Amino acid sequence: MSVLIIVESFFLIISSAVALYYGEGDFISFIQSSAISLICGGVLYLITHNCSKDIGKREAYLVVSMVWIVFSIFGSLPFLLGGYIPNFTDAFFETISGFTTTGASIVNDIEALPHGILFWRSLTHLLGGMGILVLTVAILPVFGFGVMALFSAEAAGITVDKLHPRIKETAQQLWGIYMLLVVLETIFLVFGGMSCFDAICHSFGTLASGGFSTKNSSIVNYSPYIQYVLIVFMFLAGTNFTLHYFGLKGQFKKIWKNQEFRVYVELVLSITIIITASLVYLDHGTFEKSFRDALFQVVSVITSTGFVSADYTLWHPYLWFLIFGLMFTGACVGSTSGGVKILRHLLLVKNSTLEFKRLIHPAAILPIRYNGNTVNQNIISKVLAFFILYLVVFFIGCFLMTFIGMDFISSMGAVATTMGGIGPGLGMVGPMNNFSLVPDSGKWILSFLMLLGRLELFTFLIVFAPSFWKNQ
Amino acid sequence: MSVLIIVESFFLIISSAVALYYGEGDFISFIQSSAISLICGGVLYLITHNCSKDIGKREAYLVVSMVWIVFSIFGSLPFLLGGYIPNFTDAFFETISGFTTTGASIVNDIEALPHGILFWRSLTHLLGGMGILVLTVAILPVFGFGVMALFSAEAAGITVDKLHPRIKETAQQLWGIYMLLVVLETIFLVFGGMSCFDAICHSFGTLASGGFSTKNSSIVNYSPYIQYVLIVFMFLAGTNFTLHYFGLKGQFKKIWKNQEFRVYVELVLSITIIITASLVYLDHGTFEKSFRDALFQVVSVITSTGFVSADYTLWHPYLWFLIFGLMFTGACVGSTSGGVKILRHLLLVKNSTLEFKRLIHPAAILPIRYNGNTVNQNIISKVLAFFILYLVVFFIGCFLMTFIGMDFISSMGAVATTMGGIGPGLGMVGPMNNFSLVPDSGKWILSFLMLLGRLELFTFLIVFAPSFWKNQ
Repeated sequence: MSVLIIVESFFLIISSAVALYYGEGDFISFIQSSAISLICGGVLYLITHNCSKDIGKREAYLVVSMVWIVFSIFGSLPFLLGGYIPNFTDAFFETISGFTTTGASIVNDIEALPHGILFWRSLTHLLGGMGILVLTVAILPVFGFGVMALFSAEAAGITVDKLHPRIKETAQQLWGIYMLLVVLETIFLVFGGMSCFDAICHSFGTLASGGFSTKNSSIVNYSPYIQYVLIVFMFLAGTNFTLHYFGLKGQFKKIWKNQEFRVYVELVLSITIIITASLVYLDHGTFEKSFRDALFQVVSVITSTGFVSADYTLWHPYLWFLIFGLMFTGACVGSTSGGVKILRHLLLVKNSTLEFKRLIHPAAILPIRYNGNTVNQNIISKVLAFFILYLVVFFIGCFLMTFIGMDFISSMGAVATTMGGIGPGLGMVGPMNNFSLVPDSGKWILSFLMLLGRLELFTFLIVFAPSFWKNQ
Repeated sequence: MSVLIIVESFFLIISSAVALYYGEGDFISFIQSSAISLICGGVLYLITHNCSKDIGKREAYLVVSMVWIVFSIFGSLPFLLGGYIPNFTDAFFETISGFTTTGASIVNDIEALPHGILFWRSLTHLLGGMGILVLTVAILPVFGFGVMALFSAEAAGITVDKLHPRIKETAQQLWGIYMLLVVLETIFLVFGGMSCFDAICHSFGTLASGGFSTKNSSIVNYSPYIQYVLIVFMFLAGTNFTLHYFGLKGQFKKIWKNQEFRVYVELVLSITIIITASLVYLDHGTFEKSFRDALFQVVSVITSTGFVSADYTLWHPYLWFLIFGLMFTGACVGSTSGGVKILRHLLLVKNSTLEFKRLIHPAAILPIRYNGNTVNQNIISKVLAFFILYLVVFFIGCFLMTFIGMDFISSMGAVATTMGGIGPGLGMVGPMNNFSLVPDSGKWILSFLMLLGRLELFTFLIVFAPSFWKNQ
């Protein structure tokens, strides 16, 4: 943990370099923040480095849950010390929104911020995205998602207490793909006329499925070319990273055989077609613009990125409903996207349709199949548990948000968007607004929900389970 | 089926007797409707009575699904022929709302209707409630709910194709309890000063968990005594009827040992306390009135009755949220209430909490226990399938309702309330409004949803499954 804080201070130094390059005043606040992080991390390291290094499963859950919070506390220092976000609640909200790759902002005038601060905001996304990829390799197999089995057979089912070298290797491969895509996107964006700085920040936001932009109007005023580039890379960020690996090796058949990926493509296309048809026929939009707006928003929400190229709250209410639904689907397992993830939905729906067959043929044994393999009923039980918990947390979240005075639709939008890690919601937290008007208590609730959603509920909630603290 | 239509014509005759007693003009329309039903039923009977009487499982599903629709078509005749509801869509909506014991109305001025028509409206509730009790005994065990095992060991798991005499017997016992409660409630209501006619109609509406009232303002203007009587009987209508049977035999320990019943009591009390506290402290209501309003609305919604003694849409939005949530809980399995039912939620939540324990002790075998028995994982899978289907139907329903132009909140309220068989929703279909302003296409969608919710989705949807029609 102390090592991680020292690592964070290193990234703060990088941001200070950016600030220095642009010769802006935020340089000092970065140096201060970095120094504070370095000192805290160093002291912690000196105190603890002689302790036992045996990390149990329990400690792993604790570290994973705490690291996001501690990172967000230290990460909010530059905003606070520089006075760019003078309120701790706001600064913490903005930082945790970055690290959880949500992209919900409380900043009213983004363009007034200095470059260093903007860079740090986007950097939190990049780091958050990296963290998620590690989580995927190290923690999620415990929750019944042996998807990494495709990638590296030994990694599946391995728990954190035996940090196998293979996990490190897999994580490094994933990071390699991740950074490669960041570089590629930056090049494509610069080619389309975006400034180098904006291109880097947007690439960070895209691949981490974050959504912080350096512009007040997000992507609205960028050219169609840039919007299409962003669509492609958002889509890639929502794809299972093992599939990228196959793609790099030229095994495209394997990609198309992946059922989750197929549903992902079908979902994006079908909803885009519905929205495009509605925008063209009912609102008399031109075809290209309607299609682009529809596709951009659909991909942005389903991948939980949250960039905005058109205000969907101006569309017909039934289209909000589709967007709202997409906040719950999420994209593929093993990507940087948030939410429930398509694989879980797929397994639940498969189970439901199988029940019909089971009713008609009660004697037949009909297992669920995914990618040609039989899915164990235990996994269904885990997926179910996750889904129910997600709904319960969503419901409690909405109740609390309405309790502190937000209206019905805005509450639902805010809770869905933070739990799913998207960014824009509905109503007063819609794509053309931000979270600055949410009361402070609401910001804490939403910060908590971002973390909960990002850590796939269990990793975090398990820390509160009574049996977790019992002697094992 | 033809026999059932003839039975319906008999009940129409009873209503005509009521009309005759009050000497009102609706007498003729009842005689006409009854004659039409009798002729149609008779002709159908003559055509089909020589056919094979072997009813397979497939035919059973079909009959159950069709009977509700056919009953509603014939049942809407009195409204149509008498000109009380001149539009077929409206008349059908009102009748299916009665038979499914939903209680959603499109009538603006209920008090202007003649007594015969009002009686028929409430009678549809009574018949619907009876139908549900038969369903519970005959069909639901197939869906993994062997709750009737408590009542009569042989009934559990028996499928409809072997209509065992025990099922008939069990159904008759349930009907006995049901009618006993109707009579008791009527006596209590008359004792409180309600007219005999109103008392009978409200008793029909209570025990069937229907919700049609004979007054425009539902229960608002009745005395506190009458409201408390209704609360008690609504609560009883939402209890598993096997528990009434135990109660009559004096086995109160068995009742309290029933986990679902305990959760039912706890849920009603805890939400009532929250709402009462809010009404007393934030809105400065008197304690008794606040408590009564809270309890009445909570019990009315959780049991899916839908009587109204206070307009909850005037409460704080966070209290709407609780009411909205109650639309999804439903009351106990084996009652006349609609919705998902508490038992299903209980099993799903138990499964989720067990997953935490399973994560900490991966090797341990931790089965779900209910009332001291181990619950088979197959049942969890069925419950899960039901729950997912319910959400999918809810989501599609909301999308369609917003598509035809209803606003977001009203759509959600209307779909939740019709699927759960409650009656009042939110927004433009709130407790002080009715469904008359919903466009015709919306009324058909909602009629469909009432039926779907009432038949616990599977019974109805299975008819559309391709494998259902394949030769077995």
